[in-house]
Amino acid sequence: MFKAVFPGSFDPPTLGHMNIIERASFLFDELVVIIAENRQKRYFFSAQERLDMMQELVKPWKNVSAIIWDHLIVDYMKQENIRLMVRGVRGMDDFSYEFELSMMNKALYPHIETLFMTTDPKYFVLRSSSIRELASFHGDVSAMVPPLVAEALHRKNP
Amino acid sequence: MFKAVFPGSFDPPTLGHMNIIERASFLFDELVVIIAENRQKRYFFSAQERLDMMQELVKPWKNVSAIIWDHLIVDYMKQENIRLMVRGVRGMDDFSYEFELSMMNKALYPHIETLFMTTDPKYFVLRSSSIRELASFHGDVSAMVPPLVAEALHRKNP
Amino acid sequence: MFKAVFPGSFDPPTLGHMNIIERASFLFDELVVIIAENRQKRYFFSAQERLDMMQELVKPWKNVSAIIWDHLIVDYMKQENIRLMVRGVRGMDDFSYEFELSMMNKALYPHIETLFMTTDPKYFVLRSSSIRELASFHGDVSAMVPPLVAEALHRKNP
Amino acid sequence: MFKAVFPGSFDPPTLGHMNIIERASFLFDELVVIIAENRQKRYFFSAQERLDMMQELVKPWKNVSAIIWDHLIVDYMKQENIRLMVRGVRGMDDFSYEFELSMMNKALYPHIETLFMTTDPKYFVLRSSSIRELASFHGDVSAMVPPLVAEALHRKNP
Amino acid sequence: MFKAVFPGSFDPPTLGHMNIIERASFLFDELVVIIAENRQKRYFFSAQERLDMMQELVKPWKNVSAIIWDHLIVDYMKQENIRLMVRGVRGMDDFSYEFELSMMNKALYPHIETLFMTTDPKYFVLRSSSIRELASFHGDVSAMVPPLVAEALHRKNP
Amino acid sequence: MFKAVFPGSFDPPTLGHMNIIERASFLFDELVVIIAENRQKRYFFSAQERLDMMQELVKPWKNVSAIIWDHLIVDYMKQENIRLMVRGVRGMDDFSYEFELSMMNKALYPHIETLFMTTDPKYFVLRSSSIRELASFHGDVSAMVPPLVAEALHRKNP
Repeated sequence: MFKAVFPGSFDPPTLGHMNIIERASFLFDELVVIIAENRQKRYFFSAQERLDMMQELVKPWKNVSAIIWDHLIVDYMKQENIRLMVRGVRGMDDFSYEFELSMMNKALYPHIETLFMTTDPKYFVLRSSSIRELASFHGDVSAMVPPLVAEALHRKNP
Repeated sequence: MFKAVFPGSFDPPTLGHMNIIERASFLFDELVVIIAENRQKRYFFSAQERLDMMQELVKPWKNVSAIIWDHLIVDYMKQENIRLMVRGVRGMDDFSYEFELSMMNKALYPHIETLFMTTDPKYFVLRSSSIRELASFHGDVSAMVPPLVAEALHRKNP
Repeated sequence: MFKAVFPGSFDPPTLGHMNIIERASFLFDELVVIIAENRQKRYFFSAQERLDMMQELVKPWKNVSAIIWDHLIVDYMKQENIRLMVRGVRGMDDFSYEFELSMMNKALYPHIETLFMTTDPKYFVLRSSSIRELASFHGDVSAMVPPLVAEALHRKNP
Repeated sequence: MFKAVFPGSFDPPTLGHMNIIERASFLFDELVVIIAENRQKRYFFSAQERLDMMQELVKPWKNVSAIIWDHLIVDYMKQENIRLMVRGVRGMDDFSYEFELSMMNKALYPHIETLFMTTDPKYFVLRSSSIRELASFHGDVSAMVPPLVAEALHRKNP
Repeated sequence: MFKAVFPGSFDPPTLGHMNIIERASFLFDELVVIIAENRQKRYFFSAQERLDMMQELVKPWKNVSAIIWDHLIVDYMKQENIRLMVRGVRGMDDFSYEFELSMMNKALYPHIETLFMTTDPKYFVLRSSSIRELASFHGDVSAMVPPLVAEALHRKNP
Repeated sequence: MFKAVFPGSFDPPTLGHMNIIERASFLFDELVVIIAENRQKRYFFSAQERLDMMQELVKPWKNVSAIIWDHLIVDYMKQENIRLMVRGVRGMDDFSYEFELSMMNKALYPHIETLFMTTDPKYFVLRSSSIRELASFHGDVSAMVPPLVAEALHRKNP
């Protein structure tokens, strides 16, 4: 029985995130999408908004759930006895950061295994921060995020 | 009749920027330097100050003009029917960011071609943010920016 | 009247190369594809074979031609009074090499401008060496190279 | 029932490889270590020697086996109906190559998932080629490879 | 008589910093640890707190001292007639930034030599910002910073 | 009394190498340039030719000498009780390789300190392999190597 977590800010969720979730849902018995909430950071969408969007988006997969977590990710994994963490990487820049993060996590919880999955090339441009900026200019984000996220972005950028 | 844009923050313009502008002025019939103004970002020099400096600096080249633009760069290019965007890259770090940006722009406007030009090695250190920091310590920036920019920096760092 | 060269080994030409050629054919009045022949290197296809394939492939564009050149690329550019060199980059690794090469070329011929164009993400995997290796295992290369190249690869890997 | 492959040259196997194998043996129901044999490449140890070493080394894990394969890795995966490939990455350089390889493999077999695991920092220096070179100078490789590999290297470098 | 500086924010000092200081103390006759204070940046620990911690930490090495400096580092080096600057690099990301910084410094003071030392792999994860974030979640930082820093972090994150 | 080694293939020595040697000669009491000779590699200039060139080139600095060494560099350092190794890095690619090499060397000889010096931007293009290739095409290498090396290259490429 393999359980894995897929943590992130998801501010907002992108088609790239959903691509990783879909593929990971086939690899593990259970996948928990963790909406990270760090009280020292500022988000565009609140934790509750991000959770609501994600819970709607993961409905197609019965073995995928979503939660908010405002402590260390490794603390959730220890508490739930989960050893696997999935991370999507779009290229070198992502990997450099993820590589360091995975070593930090392993130092905190040696039983963790971080599994990196590469994002499909067609989703390379889907960085959440770029999408937020694009939406602030009323650019067309419909090919980058699920419809319900596109609507949420439009509501926030009237 | 080839027209190209050269967008950037130019906060402030550096000798590296001017090197790209000079070389690009020979490659295209017309070159528009776009002073990007993003209302969600904070600049050291105002858009008008950056435009005034740039317009003074590009006077030597008859086919180069400068404008302020506060929407998506691709929107200007669509409106003016310009397909070419010039970007200067100083090394790996720049390229990584520029590469992603070019793919985002192409997703928004498939007719765009981003042409990357490499900065001459002697201009490698001329990052606008570093020059601003240097000027804040009253360091000597005279070898890094045109004289009128050096003066503007000194006036802002009394 | 802007002329540009697009040099490479083209051993063999890939759909990624053809994508760059097609896009560059719209940017310049004339584009010369240079089949580089370095007598100290070993090629899978002979220079004549690579030229034959390329000449067939560029027929759709009236302003594109192909030649073999076995000296320094900058010597051809000097001789033909061409200042523009186009290079396609697929990502960080390519760029690192190309960046150095462009500086070397500029040291040899200061009037050169190397213009980098990014390859479309769907062509990222089309490295000639990988395609040759794939063909040697009788893998399916039909989505990676033009049909006439696929046939040539099959003939060489019976 | 999750089966995964862990392909490589293993010329020779290092402690870094064994670290990945040990950790992956806990993640999958079955793990097949594939000794890649490419007839166009030259190896220091023959395929049979590499297989003999690996089979001895994986004895502690009941769900791990080793085979020689001289075609495309994806052909083995298709034939055995295995969708998961494990790859160890030690840093940026490895990842750059692996990233491209994973996209090539996905182009050949869309059902493949490549899962990247990061090597523990203490195994960063264990590149097989460096170990071979070190052994050729009679350097001490005992902290880098399993004892039976160290002996094999000494026998080959009398 | 070789004197060197080792500048940084040290917000807070990590075991990685101390590893560099210890090794550098053997290489130079005198080593000055410079606590950089930039009035336009925000720090977690005040300059005085960082100095107090560092002065306590460097007591074991008689030839190492610590100071606060709120101007350009090169100004201190010019004033004290010191030509050597030591920087620790943990990997590619660090190096990219450090490389550019070293060129900037050399442009400001051509006599400077920046000597890069690589951090031991076991200290790779010790980025000050990550440690501050970890401490804010009450994570265990005892293996990452000296005991007196761990205590200071706990006092600041009650 | 600080002694350092500066190892390399020096096939041939470039102005970039000489720039590092000149600067390092001021940092250490004694600097030994080690001409690495690996019997499993092929060189353009023989070890004796490379030594003859280097010995001529380092004559201006009384504290610099040159030797041939065909074992592990760390063996020479142990034998001579030298702990410092100088390496020049021109950018990210160099650093990636050098970083790994320094960790390998430290694993073999924990007392080693590798000090990285950055090459001046004007010497970025001076890779020995590129210079050899350029010389094979009778390109002008006079701005890249010392005169005696330029002559040696011309003699070898009649």
